[in-house]
Amino acid sequence: MIGVVCLNPALDVTHHVAAVDWSGVNRPDGVYARPGGKGLNVARTLHALGVEVLVMGVAGGATGEAVTTGLAALAVPAAFTRVAGETRRTFTVVDGRTGHAAAFNEPGPVVAADGYAEFRDRYASALAGCAAVVLSGSLPPGLAPGSYAELTAMAVAAGVPVLLDAHGDALALGAAAGPAIVKPNLAELETFAGRPLSEAPAVAAAAAELRAAGPQAVVVSLGPGGLYADTGDGCWQAVPPTVVAGNATGAGDAAAAGLAYGLAGGQPWDERLRHAVALGTAAALAPVAGEFNPSDYATLLDATVVTRTMAAAAGEAG
Amino acid sequence: MIGVVCLNPALDVTHHVAAVDWSGVNRPDGVYARPGGKGLNVARTLHALGVEVLVMGVAGGATGEAVTTGLAALAVPAAFTRVAGETRRTFTVVDGRTGHAAAFNEPGPVVAADGYAEFRDRYASALAGCAAVVLSGSLPPGLAPGSYAELTAMAVAAGVPVLLDAHGDALALGAAAGPAIVKPNLAELETFAGRPLSEAPAVAAAAAELRAAGPQAVVVSLGPGGLYADTGDGCWQAVPPTVVAGNATGAGDAAAAGLAYGLAGGQPWDERLRHAVALGTAAALAPVAGEFNPSDYATLLDATVVTRTMAAAAGEAG
Repeated sequence: MIGVVCLNPALDVTHHVAAVDWSGVNRPDGVYARPGGKGLNVARTLHALGVEVLVMGVAGGATGEAVTTGLAALAVPAAFTRVAGETRRTFTVVDGRTGHAAAFNEPGPVVAADGYAEFRDRYASALAGCAAVVLSGSLPPGLAPGSYAELTAMAVAAGVPVLLDAHGDALALGAAAGPAIVKPNLAELETFAGRPLSEAPAVAAAAAELRAAGPQAVVVSLGPGGLYADTGDGCWQAVPPTVVAGNATGAGDAAAAGLAYGLAGGQPWDERLRHAVALGTAAALAPVAGEFNPSDYATLLDATVVTRTMAAAAGEAG
Repeated sequence: MIGVVCLNPALDVTHHVAAVDWSGVNRPDGVYARPGGKGLNVARTLHALGVEVLVMGVAGGATGEAVTTGLAALAVPAAFTRVAGETRRTFTVVDGRTGHAAAFNEPGPVVAADGYAEFRDRYASALAGCAAVVLSGSLPPGLAPGSYAELTAMAVAAGVPVLLDAHGDALALGAAAGPAIVKPNLAELETFAGRPLSEAPAVAAAAAELRAAGPQAVVVSLGPGGLYADTGDGCWQAVPPTVVAGNATGAGDAAAAGLAYGLAGGQPWDERLRHAVALGTAAALAPVAGEFNPSDYATLLDATVVTRTMAAAAGEAG
């Protein structure tokens, strides 16, 4: 089983409107509501791969209930700790005339110490049954930025490898706790490094810096450029066959799911990266985050090119 | 007790955003969610007046649960029939830079025949305890436009007077079933009459036409112009003391509450109209539909001017 921690899940509500009146009353033609948040996208991707998953996190109010019900309808096992306050909504309006989308993301409930403590107890109990754990997405208000570091340390102590997908302080603190993999995107790696990273050698150097901070491997998602990995088994580049402009959120989460799958199964790095890039690219082609077309995945798996890169690139950071 | 029927309640979600990016990601500073829909505004106003009310309607899904929970938190008694599908959300984005608001109103669940039949049975049972019934707001998808006519006829047969606040076919068909009062606004009366009504005599003529179609009285809400009433006790004009530009939805619903209060208590028309105008104007001054400041109400009650109008105005319709 792979445990997927999602501490700030969301109900993603999308309205399609033929031609939006931004200062009047609109009646949407299409209304969609589904469970969202990065961790849930990872879990849905793993579930679609046939992997046994357990989503763990906190949920509150009627929106938390809607997220729980929605996951149950998708047959994704979840054990949310109920907390006071209301699970967040994200609200997206798609304007049919321009194709533009405006998103309005609520912050999520303020999670009190007792709610987090109850979640942490359940997480500790679940670790014994996990082949790997994914910690993914933003922390809700009220939780300390070191929360992922604490959860990582608990898993490491239990012998369970961790994939951490976070940003800012949560990433920097979590990395120091020794996860198996951290998976920043380019912007998140730039924030960690404190400088723009415009060239491949600069990315490699920053990834090496991040790896030196604690994780066993750093995998940087580069959008249509695929993945760059600095691992205990050298450095790798994995590139999809076609440049895809698509659903970036879904792509990053699907790549994380691919890496977690390989981590749990102990696959060699070239295979992990091949699956992660193929899943990420297939997800970018899908209209909804957390979904992908299996035949796209199969085709992309054959066509993804994985190569070892020169050790010199990583060496620059030393 | 006054029964308030609200067949298409809503969860009104409002996001306040400092400066909206209409093609990007926004993080609202303020998030508000509360039970809404015209019937619920009427019920909240009656409840604030100290009147015993019972909200009856249909609700579904997690959003229906949020509406039910929200009403309970406001201590407004409600008995919703649970139906399949999801109670609607309305979503309003207020742009702090321009002050403009964009609203996105979902249509509501498709209510199947069995759900409506179950509601109707509960409504029939409740009628015995009602001094008056208010039928207010849009009908959800799936319900016949004659639904309000049926509910009106049931109340009339049980000797319970009805206030009907609807528009289009639901108003025209409902009026023929003999409610005590119908309360169109000017636009709704124009739709009924099939012509623009720009002058007071034209309004009076159209109100008389509508009254001839079945209701015992027609009360037209004219926004800041107050109310015009064509009743079994002649024609009346009730005008608030100050011209108020404010919350139009809340104002119309509060005026309906005032009329229902007077209807249940058998007040004379001048008193009913005075209370309705004072409540409507006080509600227009309040930021949230369904609420008003009692001291505004008391002040406005003294200052509202109610006069009988010339019979000639109504006679034009004959």
